[in-house]
Amino acid sequence: MLARIHVTLKNGVLDPQGKAIENTLQNMGFSGIDAARQGKYIELDLAETDRAKAEAHVDDMCRKLIANTVIENYSFTLE
Amino acid sequence: MLARIHVTLKNGVLDPQGKAIENTLQNMGFSGIDAARQGKYIELDLAETDRAKAEAHVDDMCRKLIANTVIENYSFTLE
Repeated sequence: MLARIHVTLKNGVLDPQGKAIENTLQNMGFSGIDAARQGKYIELDLAETDRAKAEAHVDDMCRKLIANTVIENYSFTLE
Repeated sequence: MLARIHVTLKNGVLDPQGKAIENTLQNMGFSGIDAARQGKYIELDLAETDRAKAEAHVDDMCRKLIANTVIENYSFTLE
């Protein structure tokens, strides 16, 4: 199965990368950008074929390594 | 409109971050991971409400700043 994981900063956490993108786009002349936020996107190829087991596995991986749950949220889809 | 942009490395480009995730997960005892790839995920809040214009705008931003099209692919959705 392929897991697509999104890790984003929680609301209120400073996002300097997103801010840099926003400012640079504005300096380049792109207008109408209200906000930019940068997160991480991770794809995992899993040997597991059982959806429930894969879901439990990926959730475990996200909590233990991939996301810092103090400041980040994560979500994932399986296909 | 909200643009959700995914930037991923092209096939064949070395992905040390993905490799680090893969190796670390295996060292932590997670088995059955065939591959891991890390990319970027960017959300842009746009004032533009016309879908066609927003699409052209975001494509332009991706080509000029957000993605390095020599080594990266990008894709986005609007909602």
